[in-house]
Amino acid sequence: MGATHLFSNKVKNLQGSAIREILKLTQQSDIISFAGGLPAPEMFPEKELAALSQDILLNRGHVALQYGITEGYAPLIETVKKRLATFGIGKDYDQVAIVSGAQQGIDLAAKVFLNEGDGIVCENPSFIGSLNGFRAYNANLIPVTMQADGMDVQALEQILKTTPNVKLIYTIPTFQNPTGITMSLAKRQRLLQLAEQYNVYIIEDNPYGELRFAGEDLPTIKQLDQTGRVIYVGSFSKILAPGLRLGWAMAREEILAKMVVCKQVSDVHSNLFAQMLADEYLKQYDITTHIQGIRALYGERCGLMLACMDEHFPKSVTYTRPEGGLFIWCTLPEGMNSIDVMKACVAKKVAFVPGSTFMVDQDAPCNCFRLNYSSMAEEKIRSGIAIMGEVLRGVCNG
Amino acid sequence: MGATHLFSNKVKNLQGSAIREILKLTQQSDIISFAGGLPAPEMFPEKELAALSQDILLNRGHVALQYGITEGYAPLIETVKKRLATFGIGKDYDQVAIVSGAQQGIDLAAKVFLNEGDGIVCENPSFIGSLNGFRAYNANLIPVTMQADGMDVQALEQILKTTPNVKLIYTIPTFQNPTGITMSLAKRQRLLQLAEQYNVYIIEDNPYGELRFAGEDLPTIKQLDQTGRVIYVGSFSKILAPGLRLGWAMAREEILAKMVVCKQVSDVHSNLFAQMLADEYLKQYDITTHIQGIRALYGERCGLMLACMDEHFPKSVTYTRPEGGLFIWCTLPEGMNSIDVMKACVAKKVAFVPGSTFMVDQDAPCNCFRLNYSSMAEEKIRSGIAIMGEVLRGVCNG
Repeated sequence: MGATHLFSNKVKNLQGSAIREILKLTQQSDIISFAGGLPAPEMFPEKELAALSQDILLNRGHVALQYGITEGYAPLIETVKKRLATFGIGKDYDQVAIVSGAQQGIDLAAKVFLNEGDGIVCENPSFIGSLNGFRAYNANLIPVTMQADGMDVQALEQILKTTPNVKLIYTIPTFQNPTGITMSLAKRQRLLQLAEQYNVYIIEDNPYGELRFAGEDLPTIKQLDQTGRVIYVGSFSKILAPGLRLGWAMAREEILAKMVVCKQVSDVHSNLFAQMLADEYLKQYDITTHIQGIRALYGERCGLMLACMDEHFPKSVTYTRPEGGLFIWCTLPEGMNSIDVMKACVAKKVAFVPGSTFMVDQDAPCNCFRLNYSSMAEEKIRSGIAIMGEVLRGVCNG
Repeated sequence: MGATHLFSNKVKNLQGSAIREILKLTQQSDIISFAGGLPAPEMFPEKELAALSQDILLNRGHVALQYGITEGYAPLIETVKKRLATFGIGKDYDQVAIVSGAQQGIDLAAKVFLNEGDGIVCENPSFIGSLNGFRAYNANLIPVTMQADGMDVQALEQILKTTPNVKLIYTIPTFQNPTGITMSLAKRQRLLQLAEQYNVYIIEDNPYGELRFAGEDLPTIKQLDQTGRVIYVGSFSKILAPGLRLGWAMAREEILAKMVVCKQVSDVHSNLFAQMLADEYLKQYDITTHIQGIRALYGERCGLMLACMDEHFPKSVTYTRPEGGLFIWCTLPEGMNSIDVMKACVAKKVAFVPGSTFMVDQDAPCNCFRLNYSSMAEEKIRSGIAIMGEVLRGVCNG
């Protein structure tokens, strides 16, 4: 006798994220983990946040510890709006809400638009948390292949032309998770045209956009958008600290208002103390300089990892060379399964995430895998990639 | 041209909570607000939390500011489990997760069980946040009248006997929001029997249970439950601070595991810094003594408000005399509409929440309203109730 037969259809088959299960295993062991997507903890401004915490709790504790409004702490909303405006993001019709991490912004947008069975187009592969979020509404996830310059927009057009009830397109256009790929300007423009033409909305998930360490900045899709097709979601997790669970959502007023109503019944509002901390940090410190530091560190680590891969991996293994973000995407020779390679590597104390995890069809065999470089010290990158190279040379030709 | 016609059926008709809209209005004005459900800010342990913040960020900032696991910060889960055990809560088959406020625990339980159209029995009136949460899944909310000793269990039996696809019963058995009513022991036992007999699960929402200032403690339904019928949800909001957005959910392992998967796609995990703060507070300070202070204060304020109501309200207005919690529930003479009275009172700078807000059918006229006493200083209770008395004597007979 159990409750499981009473579970709703939408969650019955929903599984936890493999990444987070791996994260649990690797947290307490001597493993070298290129799994997960942790920012470098040495970049957390611990001292600054400690000083601000003290000040906020002693002088405005009655605000920080009390209930707040669902939209978010008003001064932080203003600060975020101003900051986004410096990137050219935000039109008259847009509003901003503070959310409990970008994940919540994506979840709320999905809840607002998707009936069970409605279509949402997803880059394939894509971020597992978002894909599972859409699955949890029993949506119809429609995969579009990722190419070197972003999603295949011809395939997208075909989908929009032939599939009924498609309401949303979900994209991480810049330094995508898991591939590290950045969508070209031409594709960004085409994506907007197609959204307009077929009357669908775009969720632009941009947690990594500020972490460019090579190449030239591109405009966000939200910047290019002149009609409000884009629901834009960003995060403090990669530029300040993920433990605070803070992000923002920007969308046309009527969309954002409905997302806020859904947030109200989800967690009432985001941690107010954390919102005040983020706001004061942005006001009293220079986050641009702080982010430059993060970019420099990730650029070094990415460069080192790629150099080690060039040295140790067999030539038959190919990989992306990202210009920012946290991830490198590797492709094994056709017919190989990255889960087998993962098992062999974990036995040698090196972990990464097999590519099937990020696919709309998680059950199909997949010859790709994701490496994270942001949270690993130099010597661990060197030794971990060397170990992986040894394993790969044993199983791959070339 | 707008997005609203694309919104999902489940959220299309969802409105924001009137309480929170009122909260917004009353936050920045000179109004005496008996609306909202704010705990007394003077009871927030600001200095203690400031000292702990400093210590956590300076010494364990790399943990507090990093990603954590969805279930919650492991030491806090243990601390909460131990604390619940001192109240006799928790069986071998139960697990605990930390959630972003009790609201999230309720939302997750609803998501796990409810298909669109599935039935959930709700006390009528009940907490608007939960009711809206259930509405946001397009569930069938089935009202059961509140009596002086809790929900009408005879009506409940009739519902369970005759209504298909009822999966959940939602109850706040102790110092209910909005009525302040506590369910009798006999009804708690009967509720469990009925849940067992008709194979439905119970969400026991208990944010106020520790705030008793009169009468004798009763066992929670979770304590009485021998088979795991109860999903138990509690909160730090009323015993520590709501701004931290922390609560807990306890349920049979297989139910909680699915709730955790849903939490993962909602906000990944609750603010880790706040979780560490709560854990250290519970370890280093005596929360029992702290709560005694809150209880004493609320007891005084409730007593004062009732005394003022006895003095100023016309005899035709009746009200509950709660033994704990935050709320008094008032009933106007039949045929009157509390919204009219609210408008008249707001014109005189006193706010409260009209009863229709808390009803499953929010559109039906309602002669009840809710008063909150926890967050108002003595002199404001005196003057606010005197003003209300004046308005009420003008519109009521007797």
